Amino acid sequence: MNNFRFHAYTDIRFGKGQVECLPELVCPYGKNILMVYGGGSIKKNGLYDKVKELLSDYNIIELSGIEPNPKIEKVREGATLCKEHSIDVVLAVGGGSTIDSAKVIAAGAYYDGDPWDLVTDSNNIKKVLPIVTILTLAATGSEMNKNAVISNMATNEKLGTSSHHFKPQASICDPEYMYTLPAKQTAAGTADIMSHIFEQYFQKDSGAYISERFAESLLKACIKYCPMALKEPDNYEARANLMWASTQALNSLLTCGKGGGWTCHPIEHELSAYYDITHGEGLAIITPRWMRYILSDETVDKFCEYGRNVWDITEEDKYACANMAIDATEQFFKDCGIPMTLGEVGIDDSKLELMAEDTIKYNNMSGAYVALNKEDILAILKACL
Amino acid sequence: MNNFRFHAYTDIRFGKGQVECLPELVCPYGKNILMVYGGGSIKKNGLYDKVKELLSDYNIIELSGIEPNPKIEKVREGATLCKEHSIDVVLAVGGGSTIDSAKVIAAGAYYDGDPWDLVTDSNNIKKVLPIVTILTLAATGSEMNKNAVISNMATNEKLGTSSHHFKPQASICDPEYMYTLPAKQTAAGTADIMSHIFEQYFQKDSGAYISERFAESLLKACIKYCPMALKEPDNYEARANLMWASTQALNSLLTCGKGGGWTCHPIEHELSAYYDITHGEGLAIITPRWMRYILSDETVDKFCEYGRNVWDITEEDKYACANMAIDATEQFFKDCGIPMTLGEVGIDDSKLELMAEDTIKYNNMSGAYVALNKEDILAILKACL
Repeated sequence: MNNFRFHAYTDIRFGKGQVECLPELVCPYGKNILMVYGGGSIKKNGLYDKVKELLSDYNIIELSGIEPNPKIEKVREGATLCKEHSIDVVLAVGGGSTIDSAKVIAAGAYYDGDPWDLVTDSNNIKKVLPIVTILTLAATGSEMNKNAVISNMATNEKLGTSSHHFKPQASICDPEYMYTLPAKQTAAGTADIMSHIFEQYFQKDSGAYISERFAESLLKACIKYCPMALKEPDNYEARANLMWASTQALNSLLTCGKGGGWTCHPIEHELSAYYDITHGEGLAIITPRWMRYILSDETVDKFCEYGRNVWDITEEDKYACANMAIDATEQFFKDCGIPMTLGEVGIDDSKLELMAEDTIKYNNMSGAYVALNKEDILAILKACL
Repeated sequence: MNNFRFHAYTDIRFGKGQVECLPELVCPYGKNILMVYGGGSIKKNGLYDKVKELLSDYNIIELSGIEPNPKIEKVREGATLCKEHSIDVVLAVGGGSTIDSAKVIAAGAYYDGDPWDLVTDSNNIKKVLPIVTILTLAATGSEMNKNAVISNMATNEKLGTSSHHFKPQASICDPEYMYTLPAKQTAAGTADIMSHIFEQYFQKDSGAYISERFAESLLKACIKYCPMALKEPDNYEARANLMWASTQALNSLLTCGKGGGWTCHPIEHELSAYYDITHGEGLAIITPRWMRYILSDETVDKFCEYGRNVWDITEEDKYACANMAIDATEQFFKDCGIPMTLGEVGIDDSKLELMAEDTIKYNNMSGAYVALNKEDILAILKACL
């Protein structure tokens, strides 16, 4: 088991009606709030009005229009608002895109240059305004972690950045906000959660037994509850378990005692950077092809463990067990209604080489569970066509 | 899934040599440190000298001699030292007894009355000095939680108290400190961890699927690694997994979305209060007898789930499966060398009735997984003889 630091200090308020805690959670920081959100969904479901009502004593500046694969332009806008209005706390109301934007905005408030510098080099992040979130979508885990991913479509870059100070001070997680989520978002969000778990589960063995079993627990939760949420969008138990899975999947709990680079996320970021596709769908498409590509004598035991512990596969032959687990993974995503080829999400073979090259350019793929070079990534992408 | 708050803000530094972080962890609070510890073990293994060396720039006041089932007298002494020496931070170096004492001492520093009042009524805890810990024994989870248990032998009371402010600011968890632990402590510590998990696992179903699976993961870790640590005391992986299990078992993670009272701990506290026995041994003795006593049509499914998911029991008959799981639990404790009858730890039947009565007096046993009255507890205790 590797040495590690675990410091997930976000104050989580989970459950029905927890938005009532909002005044208590923002009041330590000051009166000027930048409220960051996406499109119209929080206006439709009443959350927007609820927040304004609860914070009627505060001075609220709004930044709306955050898109999926959030763009640097909005972050720049938000950072300027923070400076102009002496913002004390950034309140993100939405999913991962909104929270990620809020994080870089909160750092931009203290940064003199272009906020894109904070994405390309996290060393530029010195000080960050406090962040409070109201989560409306289970996917990225951004509500309890130090990560943010921002896209720059002008340069076809989708890059991650992180800072210990990015962790929200508090997050309100009410599963009921997901009742009105389109099936596409429920499925893609779950694929994102599962991919976060896979990225940490498939790493070289370090004896971190508890992290392994926790990862399997969360995968089983996704497998049990995503179909249930798709069938009954207002099933509270299903929404609650998916939401809690998203938080626990990427608050660093699963990486305690482990280490190593990620694979599917770096590759998918190139798909999104060039084609602006839904992140979770890109991950679902890549994942089983990557698994099949790296299956070997070195990895078969781990895939077999995955099959036995997550999919209850009892097949004794190791390769057969591993392949059944990979097939089950692919079938699961299909059954959730996720398009499972690049063609279905509008990607042809014209830029595969470019995207494989950029994956290597922006990420250290030699530290991954199985080291990959450009040709490997190209082969995986071709298998996704 | 019930609503919940999860705010486990302790900064955990886990692994070999993490004691080097100590100056960084105490420096935000001030120069005056009260160092609380037990007997001679930290002097023998060099940890005492290491702490003094690392904190040579600080003013260290010492309070040693904390015993298992820590006594209120030492807490009173510590609180007085805090006041006399304007202590800024309490540093606990040891296991749960030392950390629990440090917590009540840190509250006592701000309390004018007798610190025992802080144990009998947690409402008296208004303000607490910052607490930093160096953990040397995996058992109580005190390194990342809000609980403290203190004994008053004068009144035969062993009571728990808790406060959000009791959570340590930071904890250094180096599994190597457990290499020299006597087998008795390794086994009893593991029984304590497992009992914490059982208390939270055996609660009425609320659909908190992730908490259930996490609990099973930690139980499996204990079952795998305790025998390994007993056989090879310096097996790092075994010590590390036990230490991390202890922390995760009682930092409120397992109770997310769940709720309900505890059973074996309240009963055991009476054994310790009257006979000062090793807490983990008392728990191991009580646990399987309690399980057998409450096995019924209402609980058999849960016990069967426990058997299937933790012990890999495939027996299809539910009662048979449940009984096999309970037998496996008892056999496991036996195999770890724990004395499994009250007689073996020096307790006869003379005070069973008194202890059953006190269990009811100090705890609300009607909120437990299966509500128990005095006669129920007496029957369980008699089965332990």
